[in-house]
Amino acid sequence: MKAIEALKEYFTPLTRLRYIKAILEWDQQVNMPEGSVNGRSEQLALIEEIYHKKLISRETGLLIEKTDQEQNLNLIESALLREIRREYDKAIKIPIELAVEIERTASLGHQAWEKAREKKDFKIFKPYLEKMVDLKRQYAEKIGMGNSLYDSLLDIYEPGATTDWISKIFNELKPKLIKVLEKINSSSNKPDQSILKKNYNSAKQWEFSIEILKKLNFDFNIGRQDKSVHPFTTSLSSMDTRITTRIWENFLPACLFGTIHECGHGLYEMGFKKEIHDTFLADGSSLGFHESMSRLWENIVGRSREFWNYLYPLLQKSFPENLKNYPEENFYRSINVVQPSFIRVEADEVTYGLHIILRFELEQDLINNGISISELPEIWNTKMEDLLGITPPDDAKGVLQDVHWSGGLFGYFPTYTLGNLYASQIYFIALKKNPSLPEDFKKGNFTNLLNFLQSEIHQYGKIYQPLELFKRVAGEKLNINYFSNYLEKKFYPIYKI
Amino acid sequence: MKAIEALKEYFTPLTRLRYIKAILEWDQQVNMPEGSVNGRSEQLALIEEIYHKKLISRETGLLIEKTDQEQNLNLIESALLREIRREYDKAIKIPIELAVEIERTASLGHQAWEKAREKKDFKIFKPYLEKMVDLKRQYAEKIGMGNSLYDSLLDIYEPGATTDWISKIFNELKPKLIKVLEKINSSSNKPDQSILKKNYNSAKQWEFSIEILKKLNFDFNIGRQDKSVHPFTTSLSSMDTRITTRIWENFLPACLFGTIHECGHGLYEMGFKKEIHDTFLADGSSLGFHESMSRLWENIVGRSREFWNYLYPLLQKSFPENLKNYPEENFYRSINVVQPSFIRVEADEVTYGLHIILRFELEQDLINNGISISELPEIWNTKMEDLLGITPPDDAKGVLQDVHWSGGLFGYFPTYTLGNLYASQIYFIALKKNPSLPEDFKKGNFTNLLNFLQSEIHQYGKIYQPLELFKRVAGEKLNINYFSNYLEKKFYPIYKI
Repeated sequence: MKAIEALKEYFTPLTRLRYIKAILEWDQQVNMPEGSVNGRSEQLALIEEIYHKKLISRETGLLIEKTDQEQNLNLIESALLREIRREYDKAIKIPIELAVEIERTASLGHQAWEKAREKKDFKIFKPYLEKMVDLKRQYAEKIGMGNSLYDSLLDIYEPGATTDWISKIFNELKPKLIKVLEKINSSSNKPDQSILKKNYNSAKQWEFSIEILKKLNFDFNIGRQDKSVHPFTTSLSSMDTRITTRIWENFLPACLFGTIHECGHGLYEMGFKKEIHDTFLADGSSLGFHESMSRLWENIVGRSREFWNYLYPLLQKSFPENLKNYPEENFYRSINVVQPSFIRVEADEVTYGLHIILRFELEQDLINNGISISELPEIWNTKMEDLLGITPPDDAKGVLQDVHWSGGLFGYFPTYTLGNLYASQIYFIALKKNPSLPEDFKKGNFTNLLNFLQSEIHQYGKIYQPLELFKRVAGEKLNINYFSNYLEKKFYPIYKI
Repeated sequence: MKAIEALKEYFTPLTRLRYIKAILEWDQQVNMPEGSVNGRSEQLALIEEIYHKKLISRETGLLIEKTDQEQNLNLIESALLREIRREYDKAIKIPIELAVEIERTASLGHQAWEKAREKKDFKIFKPYLEKMVDLKRQYAEKIGMGNSLYDSLLDIYEPGATTDWISKIFNELKPKLIKVLEKINSSSNKPDQSILKKNYNSAKQWEFSIEILKKLNFDFNIGRQDKSVHPFTTSLSSMDTRITTRIWENFLPACLFGTIHECGHGLYEMGFKKEIHDTFLADGSSLGFHESMSRLWENIVGRSREFWNYLYPLLQKSFPENLKNYPEENFYRSINVVQPSFIRVEADEVTYGLHIILRFELEQDLINNGISISELPEIWNTKMEDLLGITPPDDAKGVLQDVHWSGGLFGYFPTYTLGNLYASQIYFIALKKNPSLPEDFKKGNFTNLLNFLQSEIHQYGKIYQPLELFKRVAGEKLNINYFSNYLEKKFYPIYKI
C-alpha cells in the first residue's frame, strides 16, 4: 500500500469522530433538554480524548513522515497531507496541560462573561480574560508562526493570513467606510425600518424560510434546517449539512437573513467534490472563505433589489396584514438601513467593517503588546467614538458584547470582514462571466450563480489554501475597491446621494 | 483502589459510548436527511468497533476476575458486576465472524423483508430468514444457556425467563383470552369506532400530546418528544430521555396512545436512582418490565373510564368540530373496541396476547425444531384461524408483517405479553396500596401512581433481575388471573355482557 493510502485509511476514523462530535454539538444546540448538559459534555470529552490519542500517536507521525517522502502525490493527496500535518503539528506542539487549562478557563470564562454581561460589569469578567490572554499568548508562542504571537492565532482561522497583510487591507478599508458612512449620515432621505418591526407570525416565517431555501437550491435530501438561539451551520458527514435559523416575531430580518446567511454556508458544505468527501479536506478553505459564501448570499443577493423584485410578492402573500399595501421599493430600502449602532451582530453592511477593525486593533494590543486589561473598556469606548461616532452607555453594549474572547478565539474576528471583501470581489467576477445574474434573480433563478460558485470554489473544499484559491477565482489579489465600489453603488441610490 | 472501583471506572467510557450510539440512532430516526444514511452507518460502525474492542480486552477480563474475588460488594456493586459480566460473556462467546455475519444478514434481510412485504411474497424473504435462523441457532449454541437453544435467546431480552416458564404461562392464558374474545364476539352491543377516523388536525394533535405528557409528569427538563415513523423511546444519558410519537390525521389513537405508551417507557428511564446513573444498571430490568410500564400507562390508565372522565372535555375543546356533541361514554367505548384483526400492532388488549402466543410457538419451531421455512406462511395462517378465527388474505397481512425476524430478534415477542401480565398484577398492588388511584385520575392527578412505580420499580433500573423485581413488587409470582380478571372486569361492561 502506498504511504498516502495508509495515511488516508488511518485518518478515516478521525474524520468520523469529528462528525460524531458535530452531531453531539448540533443536538446540544438544537434539541437537548437543559438538564442533560453534564452528560453531554462528558460524551464530548470522551470523543475528544479518543480523537486526540489517535491523532498524536507515534503511528501518525510515522505515516506523515513516510508520505512526505513519497513521490508523485497528486493535488488532492498533497493537500490532504498538508491538512493532516497542520492538525498533527498543532496537537503535538501544545502540551496537554495547556490545552486542558485553556478548555477549563474557556468554560469558567464563559459563565463569568454571561454574568458580567447581564450585570453590565466588566470587572466580573476581567480576571478570566486576563488568564485567557495569558494562556493564548503561551499557546501562540508554542505554535510559533509568522512575525508575532498574533500571527500564530490568525493562522488557525485563515491559513496564510498575517497581521501585516490584514493591517494593510484594513488601513485602506477604514477611510473608505468612514467616507461612505459620513455621506449616508448626512443624507436627508433616510429609509424607514418600522415595517420590519411589526408582528410576523412565527409559523409563517418558518414556512417562508423553507421556501427561500428551496429556491436557493439548498438540498433537503442531504440537509435540513432547524431552530436555535444562535444560527449556525455544521456538517454531520459530507452528505448531511444542518443549518439553523431563529425567529423573532417582532423583527422580520432575524429569520429571513439568518436563513439566507446559513444557506450560503450550507451550500458551500454541500458542494465538496466526491473525492474529498469525509476527509479533512471536506471543509471550507478558511473561515473567511466560508463567511464570503454566507455574506454573498445574504447581502449581495439577499438584500438586492432584484432578489426582492422576485420575492416580495410572495412575502406579501405570506404577510398581507403588514405588507399588502407596502411598496416594494420601501421594503427594499428598509432592509438596507445604515446606521451606527453598538452591537456588531446587528450592524449593517457599511458599519460592520468598523466594528471588526476595532476588534482587530484591540486583539493585537492584547496578544502582542500586553496592554492592561483594566483599560480595555475605556479603549473600546474611545475607539467606538472615533470609528462610529457613538459611545456605548455600558459594558454590555461595549466590550462585553461578544462571546469570542471568553473562549479564547483571538484572531477570529478579522475573518468576518475578509468574508465581505472576498465576497464582493468574487461576485464581481461571477457577474463578469454571467452578466445576466441580476436578471436571473428577478426570475427566481439562482442556479447560475450557484453553479459558478460550485465550480470555482465549493468543490475544492480545503484543497487550495485561501489566498491561493482566491487568486484562482479572482485572477488577482484581494482589492478592497471592489467592496467599497459595491457599497457606494448600492447605498448612495438608497440614500438618494 | 478497590477492584469494583477500577471496574466501574473502566466501564464509564463504555456506558458513554452506548449513549453516543443512541444519539446517532435517535437522530437517524428523527432528523437525518435520507441522503446521509451511508455516512451514518459508518459512524455507528466506528462507535461499535471502539466499544467492542474495549469490552473484550484482556483488561476487562482481569478486572471482572479481581472484582469477583472481592468481599463485601454491596447490592449495587454486585448487580453492576453481574451486568458487566453478562455483556462481556456474550461478547467473548460469540466469534466476531458470526457477529459480523448476523449483522450483514440482518441488513440484507431487512431490505428483502421490506420488498417481500411490499410484493406480498414470502419467497423473496425466505432465503434470508433461513440464513438468519441458522445463524441465530449457532449463536444460541455458543451462548449455551438453559435447556434449549431458544432459552439462550429468550434470556437476552428477559433474563431468567425460560421456554418452560413462558409456555406454562401462555398455556394458561390462551383459553382465558379465547373465552373473553368469544363472549365479546357474540355481543350484540358493539361500540362504534368511526369517530376516531374523522379528520384531526396534526398540529392540534401534537399540542394535545404535549399537554398529556405534562399531565403525566414527563419531565421536559430531562426529556423531549419528537416525531418518527415508528414511535420509540431511548436515553442519551441518564438525564436525557427522548420519546417519539406519530400523527395520523385520520386516526386519532395513533398519536394519543403512541404518546402515552412511550411516556410510560420514558418515565421508567427518567426514574433511575442517582447512584446508578450512567452505568450499565441505568436501564429497564428487562424488556418485559419496560413494556409493563408502557402498557400500564397506555392501557390500564390511558384507556380507562376515569382517565377520559378527566381528559375528554379537554379533547373536546381541541377538536370541537368532531367531538363537541359526541358523548364521553361513546368515546370511551370507541377506544376500547375488541376485534380479531391481522396486524399485531393494531390489536386490542384482548387479542394482542393471541398474536404473541402464535409467534412464541412458531419461534420455538424455528429455533428448536428446525421446521422447514417454506411451510411457515401456511402454519402461520392455520394458527391465525385457530386462535383468532380469521385467515390472512396474503403474506403481508400474515407472516411478513413484523420486522423482528429480519433482524434475528427471536425471543423478543414474548416480552410484549409478559409486559401486559406484569402490568395488571403490578397495578393491582398499586391499587391495593392506593385505593384512591381511579379518583386521582378523575382529577387529573397521576402523581400517586407515578410515585408508587418510582419507588417500587423505576429507581432500581437493572439492580434486580426481572423475576426477582417482580416478586418484590407483587409479593408473589406472576399470576395470569390478574390480567384475565382485569380484561373481564373492563370489557364485559363495555360490551354489555
